[in-house]
Amino acid sequence: MTGPFTASDERAARMALCCVTEPAQPRDLVDVLRHGPVERWEQLLRQGGPQGDRARALDLDRVHRATDRAGARFVTPADEEWPSALEDLHTAGHQGLAGAPLGLWLRGPGWLGAVPERAVAVVGSRAATSYGSEVATNLAYDLAGHRAIVVSGGAFGIDAAAHRGAMAGGGATVAVLAGGIDDVYPRGNAELLERVAREHLVVSELPPGAHPTRVRFLSRNRLIAALAPGLVVVEAGIRSGARNTLGWAEQLGRRVMAVPGPITSTGSATPLQMLRDGATAVGGADHVLEVLAEAGSHLVPPLASEPLRPLDRLEPEQRALFELVPGRGGLTAEALALTSGRALPQTVALLAELDEQGFVVKTDDGRWRLRPGSVG
Amino acid sequence: MTGPFTASDERAARMALCCVTEPAQPRDLVDVLRHGPVERWEQLLRQGGPQGDRARALDLDRVHRATDRAGARFVTPADEEWPSALEDLHTAGHQGLAGAPLGLWLRGPGWLGAVPERAVAVVGSRAATSYGSEVATNLAYDLAGHRAIVVSGGAFGIDAAAHRGAMAGGGATVAVLAGGIDDVYPRGNAELLERVAREHLVVSELPPGAHPTRVRFLSRNRLIAALAPGLVVVEAGIRSGARNTLGWAEQLGRRVMAVPGPITSTGSATPLQMLRDGATAVGGADHVLEVLAEAGSHLVPPLASEPLRPLDRLEPEQRALFELVPGRGGLTAEALALTSGRALPQTVALLAELDEQGFVVKTDDGRWRLRPGSVG
Repeated sequence: MTGPFTASDERAARMALCCVTEPAQPRDLVDVLRHGPVERWEQLLRQGGPQGDRARALDLDRVHRATDRAGARFVTPADEEWPSALEDLHTAGHQGLAGAPLGLWLRGPGWLGAVPERAVAVVGSRAATSYGSEVATNLAYDLAGHRAIVVSGGAFGIDAAAHRGAMAGGGATVAVLAGGIDDVYPRGNAELLERVAREHLVVSELPPGAHPTRVRFLSRNRLIAALAPGLVVVEAGIRSGARNTLGWAEQLGRRVMAVPGPITSTGSATPLQMLRDGATAVGGADHVLEVLAEAGSHLVPPLASEPLRPLDRLEPEQRALFELVPGRGGLTAEALALTSGRALPQTVALLAELDEQGFVVKTDDGRWRLRPGSVG
Repeated sequence: MTGPFTASDERAARMALCCVTEPAQPRDLVDVLRHGPVERWEQLLRQGGPQGDRARALDLDRVHRATDRAGARFVTPADEEWPSALEDLHTAGHQGLAGAPLGLWLRGPGWLGAVPERAVAVVGSRAATSYGSEVATNLAYDLAGHRAIVVSGGAFGIDAAAHRGAMAGGGATVAVLAGGIDDVYPRGNAELLERVAREHLVVSELPPGAHPTRVRFLSRNRLIAALAPGLVVVEAGIRSGARNTLGWAEQLGRRVMAVPGPITSTGSATPLQMLRDGATAVGGADHVLEVLAEAGSHLVPPLASEPLRPLDRLEPEQRALFELVPGRGGLTAEALALTSGRALPQTVALLAELDEQGFVVKTDDGRWRLRPGSVG
C-alpha cells in the first residue's frame, strides 16, 4: 500500500481501529461512539502522537490477507453473526476496562450468533488439580450432551479440560483468545486450539499476529462473560484470572456458579468465596441447566440417565490402575505394580493402554503421571 | 423397693417418666404439659397396658444408684444448669418427634447451662473420608482456640474427629448420646467417650443402662441441634443421620453451615445440597465465628494468626511420609519406601513415630493406613 488507509466504510474502519487501539479502553470507545468508526478513524489519521503514527502506518490489506490466510473472518455489529449479547458490554465496566468490541475475528465453522442462547462459560485456574480437571472435563462433557456450547479461554488447566470435555461429549465449544486467532497461545495447547478452530470456533478482537498481554487477558475475559448467560468457576485460586472473568459476569448480570471443592485445596479458594458471596453451588450439568433455565436459556433439559463419561470408557482393570497414578511427580511402573498388587508386565501393558487413550504420560525420568488436562 | 414408686416431687416424677416413656413422643409430652409431671406419673401408675406395667415395675432407687455409680447427675428445667435453649424444643417438631426433654442425665465436669452461648454443633457421617476427618478435626481444633464448645454425637467418623479436635485444641466438648450416659456406644469410641465424660460432658435424656435405638438417635439429634446456635455439617452422604440433625436445626431456626467438599465424593452430597438450599459455606473456624457472631454468640473473634493444627506438629519428614499413607486399603512399608524414595529402615522408623502419635495404624496383614478418625 502506498498511502495511509482511508476508511470508506464502517466495517473497514472498525477493523482498522481494532488494529491500532487496545480493546476495551473507555476513552477510545467514547470517541468511536461519539463520532462513529469512520470519522474516528479519519481523526486518528490526522492525530499526532504514537496512536496517529500507528494509524498512518497501518497496512489494512495486509490484515485482510492475514485474516484470509488464517481461514478467518472479521465480523462487526452490522453482521447477522454478531450476537446481541455482546451489546450488553456497552454498559459494563470492570477494573478500568469497558465496552463492547468494535469487531471480532472468528475462525472455524461455528456460528457465533447462535452461541449465547446455548452457551455456558466454564473457566478456572491454569494450575488445575486432577480434581479440577476431572470435574471440568466431566461437566463440559455432560453439558455437551444437552447441546450446550462450552465457552472458555483456551488456557491450560480448567479451560483446556472444558474444551476437551465438550468435544469428547460430541458438543460444540468456543475458545476466546487474548491474542490473534492465529496466535495459538499457549503453545502447549496448539493442537487443542487448532482442533477447536477446525471443528468449532476461535474468537478474538485482536488482529491476526497480535500477542496476548496482561491487559488483553483482562479485556478477553469480558467477552467470555458476555457470550454466555451463565459462568461456572470450576477451580480457581484466590489470584486466578477466573476471578476477573467472574467480575465481568457479575457486572453483566450473568448467572454465576461455583463448583465446590475441598477447602484444603488452594484451588477451592475462589469457589468457596463465591459460595459465601451468593453464587449457586453446582455439582453437575443438571444443576447448571437448572440455573440457566431460570435465565431463559434454550438448553435441553437433563436426561433421565447420565451420559457416559470419558473415564467410564476404561475397563475396570485400567480404571483401577489409573486411580493409582499421581497427578504430580510420578511413579515408576515398578512402584505402581507393587501398589496395585499386579505383576510388572501386566502393569506395563495397562499403562501403555492408558497412555494410548491419553490418560497418562511417561515423564523423562521414566515415571508415570496423569496427563495434564486429561480427565484424571 | 416394695411398692410402686409414687412421685412426691416434680424432679422425681420427671426422672421416672424418662425411664418409662420414649423421648420426644408428642402424645406423651402433651399429657405431661397438660397435667404436670407428678400428676402424669400418678396417671401412668393407674393406667393399664404396657406403659402402666412399666411404670409400676420401675425401681427408681435403682436408677438413682446407677446414676451415682456412673458419676452422673440428673437435671430438670428447675435446675440452674438447665439451658433455656432446650425450651426452644417445645415448639419444634420434625419427622413425628417433638418437644423438650423432661430431664437429662449429665456426666462430667462441664456445666450444661454455659454450653449454648458458646456452642457449635459439628456433625457428619460415620463413614467419613480422610478429607472429612481432617476438616472436622482442624475445624474443631480451631474453634476450641476461640473458646467454642464443640457439640456432637459421639459417633464414629466426623463426630469422633470433632470431639478429638476440640480436646486437642485445649477446648471443651459435649457428646450427646442416644443411649444412657454409661452406655458407651459405639464400643470403638469407648476410650474417647470416657475421656469426654472425665474432662468435659456427656449428655443423655435416657436413664443409665438404656441402649440406643433408631428412634433414640433421631430424638437425640434434636438435642444436638438445640444446644448450639449453629450447626456445621462437615461431610455427610445423602442418607446420613446428619441430615436429620440438620432438619432439627432448621426447625429450631439455628444457623446451618456446610463445609464444601469434592463433588466427586458421596460424602459431599449433603453439604452440596445444603449449599444449594441456602446454607452458608464455611471453610474454617473464622467463617463459623462470623455466622455465629451474627446470631449473637459470645465467642472470641478470630485471632490474627492461625492456631497450630495437629498436623503442624509433625516434622517435615514425618509429614511427607504421612501424605503418602492411604486412608483405605493400606500400603506395605516396602511400597511406601519405594514411593517416598526413602530407605526401608528410615521409612519403618517414620511409620513407628506416626503410629505413636496416632496418625497411622498397621492393619492385620501388615499394611499401613491412616488411623480412622485421625486428622489425616
